[in-house]
Amino acid sequence: MNGVFELPERELTCPAEPGMLLSDAADAAGVVLNVACGGTGRCGGCAVDLVEGRFGDDADEAIDLGAGPRRVLACRTRVVEGDFRVRVPAHSLVAGGEKIVVDFDHLPAWTLSPTVASEYLRLPPPSLAEQAGDIERTINALEGRGYDGGIQASLTALRDAPKACRDGQYRVTATLARCGDRWRLTRIEPGDTTERLYALAVDVGTTTVACALVDLRSGQVIDCASSYNQQVRRCNDVAGRISYACTAEKVDELRHLIVDATINRLIRILIERHGIAADDVSRVSAAGNSVMTHLLLGVDPTHLGGVPFQPASNFPPAFSAGQLGIAIHPAAPVDVAPATAAYFGGDITADTYVCGLHRAKELTLLVDIGTNAEIAIGNRNRVIACAAPAGPAFEGQGLTCGERATTGAIDTLEIDPAEMTCRFTVIGGGAPSGVCGSGLIDFVGQAFKAGLLTAAGRYDLPAAKAKGCDRLRTVPTPDGGEALGYVLAEAEATDDRLRPLAVTEADVATLLQAKGVIFAAIQIAAKHLGKSFSDIRHVFLAGGFARHLDLTNAVAMGLLPDIPIDRFRFIGNGSLAGAYLRLIDHTVGPSFDRIAAMPEVIELNLDPDFMDAYTCAMFLPNANDELFPSLRPGATDGVTEQADGA
Amino acid sequence: MNGVFELPERELTCPAEPGMLLSDAADAAGVVLNVACGGTGRCGGCAVDLVEGRFGDDADEAIDLGAGPRRVLACRTRVVEGDFRVRVPAHSLVAGGEKIVVDFDHLPAWTLSPTVASEYLRLPPPSLAEQAGDIERTINALEGRGYDGGIQASLTALRDAPKACRDGQYRVTATLARCGDRWRLTRIEPGDTTERLYALAVDVGTTTVACALVDLRSGQVIDCASSYNQQVRRCNDVAGRISYACTAEKVDELRHLIVDATINRLIRILIERHGIAADDVSRVSAAGNSVMTHLLLGVDPTHLGGVPFQPASNFPPAFSAGQLGIAIHPAAPVDVAPATAAYFGGDITADTYVCGLHRAKELTLLVDIGTNAEIAIGNRNRVIACAAPAGPAFEGQGLTCGERATTGAIDTLEIDPAEMTCRFTVIGGGAPSGVCGSGLIDFVGQAFKAGLLTAAGRYDLPAAKAKGCDRLRTVPTPDGGEALGYVLAEAEATDDRLRPLAVTEADVATLLQAKGVIFAAIQIAAKHLGKSFSDIRHVFLAGGFARHLDLTNAVAMGLLPDIPIDRFRFIGNGSLAGAYLRLIDHTVGPSFDRIAAMPEVIELNLDPDFMDAYTCAMFLPNANDELFPSLRPGATDGVTEQADGA
Repeated sequence: MNGVFELPERELTCPAEPGMLLSDAADAAGVVLNVACGGTGRCGGCAVDLVEGRFGDDADEAIDLGAGPRRVLACRTRVVEGDFRVRVPAHSLVAGGEKIVVDFDHLPAWTLSPTVASEYLRLPPPSLAEQAGDIERTINALEGRGYDGGIQASLTALRDAPKACRDGQYRVTATLARCGDRWRLTRIEPGDTTERLYALAVDVGTTTVACALVDLRSGQVIDCASSYNQQVRRCNDVAGRISYACTAEKVDELRHLIVDATINRLIRILIERHGIAADDVSRVSAAGNSVMTHLLLGVDPTHLGGVPFQPASNFPPAFSAGQLGIAIHPAAPVDVAPATAAYFGGDITADTYVCGLHRAKELTLLVDIGTNAEIAIGNRNRVIACAAPAGPAFEGQGLTCGERATTGAIDTLEIDPAEMTCRFTVIGGGAPSGVCGSGLIDFVGQAFKAGLLTAAGRYDLPAAKAKGCDRLRTVPTPDGGEALGYVLAEAEATDDRLRPLAVTEADVATLLQAKGVIFAAIQIAAKHLGKSFSDIRHVFLAGGFARHLDLTNAVAMGLLPDIPIDRFRFIGNGSLAGAYLRLIDHTVGPSFDRIAAMPEVIELNLDPDFMDAYTCAMFLPNANDELFPSLRPGATDGVTEQADGA
Repeated sequence: MNGVFELPERELTCPAEPGMLLSDAADAAGVVLNVACGGTGRCGGCAVDLVEGRFGDDADEAIDLGAGPRRVLACRTRVVEGDFRVRVPAHSLVAGGEKIVVDFDHLPAWTLSPTVASEYLRLPPPSLAEQAGDIERTINALEGRGYDGGIQASLTALRDAPKACRDGQYRVTATLARCGDRWRLTRIEPGDTTERLYALAVDVGTTTVACALVDLRSGQVIDCASSYNQQVRRCNDVAGRISYACTAEKVDELRHLIVDATINRLIRILIERHGIAADDVSRVSAAGNSVMTHLLLGVDPTHLGGVPFQPASNFPPAFSAGQLGIAIHPAAPVDVAPATAAYFGGDITADTYVCGLHRAKELTLLVDIGTNAEIAIGNRNRVIACAAPAGPAFEGQGLTCGERATTGAIDTLEIDPAEMTCRFTVIGGGAPSGVCGSGLIDFVGQAFKAGLLTAAGRYDLPAAKAKGCDRLRTVPTPDGGEALGYVLAEAEATDDRLRPLAVTEADVATLLQAKGVIFAAIQIAAKHLGKSFSDIRHVFLAGGFARHLDLTNAVAMGLLPDIPIDRFRFIGNGSLAGAYLRLIDHTVGPSFDRIAAMPEVIELNLDPDFMDAYTCAMFLPNANDELFPSLRPGATDGVTEQADGA
């Protein structure tokens, strides 16, 4: 018996067993549902449409499909028997899992000095006169090559040594991993295998995990692969993972999902694709936020989630792949990027390294927008950091029209100020199913400039009517109610043809709250340095979200400070890039430690000026119009032109 | 259905399953058979008498018990069905497993400075202003107590930290293990648990494993326990273990037998007896010969067994108990005493520390007699070491009358020179079943002094007859032949009443070969130092064998050099004592490393004088009578008196 899941772009199947939960069947088919509640039926993220088959509900009552497809929660619905067919709407799928944006050719300068070395050694053959053990003989030879004293062998190297020495007739290859100021002898193999020396950089994202396979001899990236962090099966966001990890068993389950089900799977894909043996991968460098790194190490993340937000460790030592269950050489060290604080994690440390804030002479701003926005501002002398709890509005969550940047999402949008009509592009090119972060920013920025939205974020209905715009009207909302909204697409032009796709005033309010928190955080951080925005010479934007962003609209809506556009740079996946650099240049690891220890972390809620700044920042672009000089009446029209002329 | 094994002093039972090998049934019953061949039927060590039941042989033919008990090899015999009863003769049982001889009150001076410390810490409670992780907070506090920088946390400590900090309201106990020149944070617990800090010293003997449970707060031994090294189930001697370990699976089987079946069982006994939690045991210090330590670490010992006798490592680093499968706190380090060479192992390093040879100003000799004899001679400036392949004669192996020092063995013996009759004592006090090493030495020494044995090791039949001695006569041998032998006990006075217990000329020859190798080794080692025996001020005898030894007889037979008896000392189980001292005084570990690196190891076969010395030493006491001045005609009568007068 087979179950079929119809996804927007393809079908996935699984064997169907009577009694199985539809969410488990989805898991088995490889369908990653957008679950936020750990499968308890509270979030509604796993809504699917039953098309064919026999299903039962929570109370074991048969579900009647007589009147056509029925929408249910997959986590509350069981397969009764036989084949089935289920349609999965785009908004019930987690987006991500496939893209890696790192421009490996444009990274900070590095000098190839890997954290793992391999040496082909001709050991003195054994004799009755020479009593040293195989390991001591190997270490002596390595000391002769200039490796500093205090080399310690791994248990694997010790166990492999007798056979390796005999099989290679005392010509062996020793693999050494730098650990702090010492070298560790991780591996001994017969013969000359120095050409096989690989490592893995891992960006442990909450939604997406990306791996880069690196040839340590050249320092070059051979290939990349990415997939969902399989923890999304239990919960799609960081807060949900913390809640889910409420027992030691659940912590271990999440550890298993990230290590075995995600990272080890990606490793297998990469090494099989390039014919590399798992044991030839000699180091891992990982970076992620603190919740992800805690779970990777199997450490309870609970106390990261509540005041006073305490990590178990910001500077975890390198454990071995064997200890952590990572399927490469068991003695290979696994470095985890150090964090500054619970909500200012190793991913930001890597971002900081990549953008060079810690080395900058000039004032530099780093903004990483995800569910939280992390902000660092400063230069090589002093850095102020804070985390802004923006919520997931820019990931499309919590809005009637929002969705992640996946197929069907509107990602860019323009409003014609003359007629207040709009044009947009859709990811994948089909009918739209929602609006993702960049599209939402475009909408608010453009609508404000067109006069469709007031500075307070309300629709200006008379103005719209005056221009003959019929898109601003009362629309049905997904919860069955009605609201004033701007219709982007009529029902028949949407992906599911159920109702018009519209941005409601409530959606706008949610976005203004989110951008208000982020902007106010930047403002307060700059204040702690005694600097104004005009002092900022470089702005770096990190995170997947940033790559779709239209900067002009982001400044126009007051999300980012009013700074000439040519001072902005996208750094892409700084987490992966930084993790990669740490593998190939041994000076990067110590820099990471300095970077993580550097920022003065400020707590926004404890700052007396934050609430004022936040309140002002909920206006368009800001109630304090001195902060947006280029947008004031009389200024040249908008930041783009100013930047172009700069 | 039950199987019963009748042992000399008790009965052991096991469930009987049709088809099972009798040797497996014995294993299940806890009967440790004296197997040397790995259960391949070649050594005959598992001979048992079938008393009742239905059994089948190698060819699945039924074994007929009609004519009474039948002697068979347990490894070649299967249980067909039903209850059974089998008698196990004393010589088919491995001796050992129960005695530990360490005088913990008379050891070299030590200063309590354990290799593990625990500190009760009141950590600063967390706050929004204090972003350090639990681990960093703990390490900071430890640095404040004077623990040097570079403390690294174990994965267990990291995983335990969040709960320990909250449960203890930031009052925690940190356990630190010294590893080289750094400290390792192995454990964090809530509250003050500093009173629970234990460690374990382990003597990993080939036959017997002894453990001492140590309270690290006082440095005192709480209790000891010992048992067979369960590897004896596969093979009773070192050479046999090496042969058995011919595949990775067999190496792992032997590793499992020493770690799980032996050491972990002893740990359980000790901690249960004293109500101690396994996690409160924070370190292990082990010492053993190189084959035992290789197997403990799961390392192939094959190359220890053949020229040029190569260890995988003489100085293995400390691995964690978790890595090695030892059932104490998983992050606890396991120190293994370093070795000088393949056949000069960590047990001798420990012996050397305990006897103080490496610190001695005066010339000192250390002799450890087991299957091999290890010899070290020198002082704090220079040490010569060698291993003498004496064979197991002094363990009673390879003799018609020999057995290990277990119940039923003759352990002391005197011969009346006037009538050439003898008196002896038996371990356990019953009828004798054989003669153990000390009894054999007494016999040869006394028989030579009484004129019963010539200098060439032949019986002087005319002399015996002249004195009316009827004990010297042709006797049946166990292999069905006959030989000239001195009857210690007539058949009806022996344990199994099968035949007279006699020492044959062949037995004497085997003993003279063994003592000849040992004595010549001592002689050649002294020669390398340019010293004569009279220069030796201290002789230390190590090993279980030594404790039963009558020194006068050992010198009289030419096993030990002719040195005043008051210069001899027994050090008992130096391996356990040394392992213990290493736990409680952190200066001992570095001394071990120096001791192991110190000796110049000489290869006897490569010395041109060895064969001469060996040939002379096969005479009684020695063909070179200048070496035994006190035994020459005209000297005072024997060493005892000389020593008494010294």
